[in-house]
Parts: sequence; C-alpha cells; structure tokens
Amino acid sequence: MPGPDEAAADRARARDATLTKPAGALGRLEALARWTAAWQGRHPPRADRIRIAVFAGNHGVAARGVSAYPAAVTAQMVANFEAGGAAINQLCDVLGAELTVVPLELDRPTADMTEAPAMDQAGCVAALETGLAAVDEGADLLCLGEMGIGNTTAAAALAAALFGGDGASWVGPGTGVDREGLARKAATVDAALERHPEARRDPLAALACLGGRELAAIAGAVVAARHRRVPVLLDGFACTAAAAVVARLHDGGLDHAQVAHRSAEPGHGRLLDALSLIPLLDLDMRLGEASGAALAAALVRMAVAAHNGMASFSAAGVSGPAE
Amino acid sequence: MPGPDEAAADRARARDATLTKPAGALGRLEALARWTAAWQGRHPPRADRIRIAVFAGNHGVAARGVSAYPAAVTAQMVANFEAGGAAINQLCDVLGAELTVVPLELDRPTADMTEAPAMDQAGCVAALETGLAAVDEGADLLCLGEMGIGNTTAAAALAAALFGGDGASWVGPGTGVDREGLARKAATVDAALERHPEARRDPLAALACLGGRELAAIAGAVVAARHRRVPVLLDGFACTAAAAVVARLHDGGLDHAQVAHRSAEPGHGRLLDALSLIPLLDLDMRLGEASGAALAAALVRMAVAAHNGMASFSAAGVSGPAE
Repeated sequence: MPGPDEAAADRARARDATLTKPAGALGRLEALARWTAAWQGRHPPRADRIRIAVFAGNHGVAARGVSAYPAAVTAQMVANFEAGGAAINQLCDVLGAELTVVPLELDRPTADMTEAPAMDQAGCVAALETGLAAVDEGADLLCLGEMGIGNTTAAAALAAALFGGDGASWVGPGTGVDREGLARKAATVDAALERHPEARRDPLAALACLGGRELAAIAGAVVAARHRRVPVLLDGFACTAAAAVVARLHDGGLDHAQVAHRSAEPGHGRLLDALSLIPLLDLDMRLGEASGAALAAALVRMAVAAHNGMASFSAAGVSGPAE
Repeated sequence: MPGPDEAAADRARARDATLTKPAGALGRLEALARWTAAWQGRHPPRADRIRIAVFAGNHGVAARGVSAYPAAVTAQMVANFEAGGAAINQLCDVLGAELTVVPLELDRPTADMTEAPAMDQAGCVAALETGLAAVDEGADLLCLGEMGIGNTTAAAALAAALFGGDGASWVGPGTGVDREGLARKAATVDAALERHPEARRDPLAALACLGGRELAAIAGAVVAARHRRVPVLLDGFACTAAAAVVARLHDGGLDHAQVAHRSAEPGHGRLLDALSLIPLLDLDMRLGEASGAALAAALVRMAVAAHNGMASFSAAGVSGPAE
C-alpha cells in the first residue's frame, strides 16, 4: 500500500509555521490539514469534493433476535436514502457532498454466522470488490458508513476475532435492544467465534465468517481509497470494525483514515483503543449511515480552508513572538 | 432574562420521535436541534444566518510580560481580520457566515489591574453596551470570540474572582509563554486579586477591575442575544470567562449558550467544570478569535438540517422497532 507523501506533508508543515497564529494554536486542525496533504499527495490539500458512500447489507444472524428492528428495515432505509429522507441526506446537503448508496444483495441475507460462514470466499471477495469500485479518484475526501439490521452483532464478532475478548466485551445496545437482547447478542457472538476458530488467526477469514457484505465493502473501499489517494473518514462501530480488518492485514493500513467520532455503542471505544485511534468528535451518536463521518468532513474542510487561506505574518504585517 | 420557549422545544421533541432513526441515535445533535428551537422561540429552528462577532481589546497588564507576543499584535490582527487573512475569515467563508470585528479603543489599553481597576464603571458599562449593540435580531446563531494580547491573564483573574482559587490554578501558556512567563502570569493574577477584594464578591466589579473591554463586550453580547432570541456559541477560555460573569449574575444565564470547544488552555477545563458546561468539541485548539465557535456552528447547522429535513417513519414507509 502506498505511504504518505512526505514532501506534501513537509510543505504543509512549512506553510503552517508562517500563518498568523501562535504555533500549534489550531491544534488538531493543523494536523488534519497536514494529514490531508500527505494522503492526497499534494499541497495545497483540497476538501471541496466530499464523497459519502453508504453500503447496506442484510445478515442471517438478524433472525436470532439481535436487533430492535426487523430486517426489512435495511431495504426500507435504502429507499429512504434514495428518496432523500434520512439523516445522511440532510448532512450531505449541508456539505454539498455526493452521496452514493450501495445495497449489496439485500434480498439474500448472509448465512447465520453461528451455523456457517456468513459469506463464502467468493462472496466476500465480490463484496470487497464492490467497495473497491465505489471509490473514484476525483474525490477529495471519502466518508464511509453502513446500514444493516444486525450488523453491530457482526461487528462485535469481527472485533472479538481481530482483537480478542468474548461477546460480552464487544456487544452493545445497537439500535436499542433490551437486556435480554443484549445477552442474546453476546451469546450469538460467542457461538460464532466457537464455530469459526480460524477467524481469530486470519483477518480475511474473520471478515468472511463473521462480517457482512457491507462490512467487506467498507474494507475494500478503505484499500481503494489508499491507492487512489483519497483520505478517509470512518464512521462508528460497525464501520471501524470493518476497517480494522485492513489494519490487521497491513501495519499502518489505516493511516490514511481518521475516525470521525466515538460512537455511543460501547464496543467502539474499546475498538479505538485497540487501534490507537483518537476520534474527532464525541457526540453520543450511534446512527451509522456515515452520519458521524459527514460531521467530521465539515471539520476537515474547515481545517483545509484555514491552512490554505490564512495570511502569513509577513504578508499581514503581524509581529511574531517577542524575543 | 427570558426563558426558553417550552412549546417550541416540545414541538422539536415530538417531531424528533417521528424521524427515521432509532430514538436518541443522533445523540447530542438531537439536543442541539431542540435547544436551538427553544432559544430561538420557534419551530422549526433555523441555522442559516450565522453571525460571528470578534471583540478586540488591549490590556495594561500586557506590559508585565504576560504574553509571548507584543501588545501591538492586537491591532495588527484586527487589520488581518479586516483584510480576510486570519483563521476566522477562512472558517467564516466555509460557513457563509457574517463576520463582525469590533475593536474597542485599542490605542488606549485598560489600566494595569495590579495597580488600578482595569476599567472604571463608566468604561465597563460602555464596553458592555458595545457588546449589546453588536447583536442583531436577524441572526440564527451568534458565535462569540475575542482577540487581545494579555487577555488570558485577565480571564484567569476573572475566573479566580468568580469561582475561587489563586492565580496558579487558572493561568496557562496562552499564546505560548515559557515557564517564567507562566509564573509571572500567576503572580500578576494574585496581585490583582489582592488589589481588588470586591471582585470576589461582585461579578460586575470583577469584570471592571480584572476584565477588559473585549471581555465586557462579550458579556454584553451574551445578554443581548438572550433578549433577541439568538442562541450563542462561546469560544474558548477568555470568551467563557467573560460569559461566566452573566452566569454568576443570573442563575441559568448561560442556558441559551453552548460552549463550542474545550480549549487547550488548562483553565478552560476547570471553568467548564465550574459552570457545569460540556463543550461540543475537543480539538486541542487555543487560538481564540471565535475559531472554535465557528467549527461548532457547522455542527449546529447540521443538527438543525437533520431535524428539519428528515422523513418520518410513516412518510418513508420504514418499520418501527419490532415488538
């Protein structure tokens, strides 16, 4: 996988030092502008064309009562995205971003992971390729998100396989299951982990056995974005669990990604710790559908605007620090 | 001071319950939309017209070596704001916001607070009135910020007077003073507090004796915004210290304000705890000039857009939770 463009990062660092503000005073915004330059491979960085990709999948495991909502909601929400009625559509409009919604065989749920691999190898590769194909070179930033009833259970199983721990340590209320539902989720994850011991050793096996098509597509999109020099904003728990497959396959494989926010889903904080990633926002959100990533895109855009547009001390006639 | 419009808040709550997302899944965005409606006194809330007001003042105490930058920088930065070269100008452009820069007698610094009240009563009232006059009814949101070399020392003194503690517990590096500078700041605050014992008893006396014109103007703008039904986004340490005067004068006096971000200036966290306010962002920023408030305005705009634009479960044909 290509690394960062150190020359672009150096140009960003050099320009930043001239701008009319105390050194470091824009904090993480400065780092974001530098990161954008490094992973776009250009200076000045740009944050005009924001692409938002939401992948949707259905999960056989949903039949085990692990979600507060019926599985039919996945397709209904895809229709809502297409009609412009979901949260992500409104956030997209504010950003002037381009939304791509990618449903993956919604009428054919993956297998129940407690009984069989969720996907066979060919199915997993096809979903990865769908994600790869969804990334175009023209975007300045890519926000990734998902929709899939039952997918916080799949994400918990995936996280457990990648980073250790049992079901109880990774599951959470998702869309809002009660205490019994939570216990069912934990038991389901434990059963799936026991069924697929290879998932603990092999990140791609984990993705196929425990993941889902939308999660595989996200992993594919993360890889494609790296190659196409498009910095990535990851959304919440399910999205980060999918991207974590790339981190486990390749050291530094998520260096071109930022985690947009810390989800209210409790497993997300644990996952961020395991990945040593610090989210940009912490607003108690747990919607998915790239909603947190869209908010973070506004921050990156403003970071880039400040970096590119600010005057230098010398051009503005502003004195530097007193000696 | 007027209270929130509970009917508008109720309409926001009722609408939120119908929207195509699990209840509570947008977390703090839901609360922001409700808060905007309550303090604008209307439903639907709006976040189109964002007004950013940056007040600038000079401080006699700057002569005591409490800043890394010479006092001339205040006027130089005001010129930079007016020429469009500062960070806030770029953030403003991204938002399509209206920037108002209000320099307050920059060529006549306030008195050195260790020797005399920074402002006499008439001077303090005049500065408050400048802030009052800067708020127009037409804005949907008001972002407040400041510029003033030496003003983190004034803000630390003000915070100490309002909430207790000595200089060392409230000062920080500001624009970047070294260890000796930090010790000078703490000693300066202690000397000012000793000089003006009435400041510990009377918030307005604290503002006049220890504050500065830009800080008084911010306090005035906070009050005016309440009366004109314009929700407020407060920036960092100096801005919050100024607004805290209003909170100490009137219980709930900052209920129409959100703190945009937690500044890297260490006193800010302490001040937020004292005010029981939870900031929207935490990005290690410490620039001032309303830069954090501008970022937060993007979040409020997106919260309002989601609230106003999302489809309901029934309109979108999306199933609710399974029973």
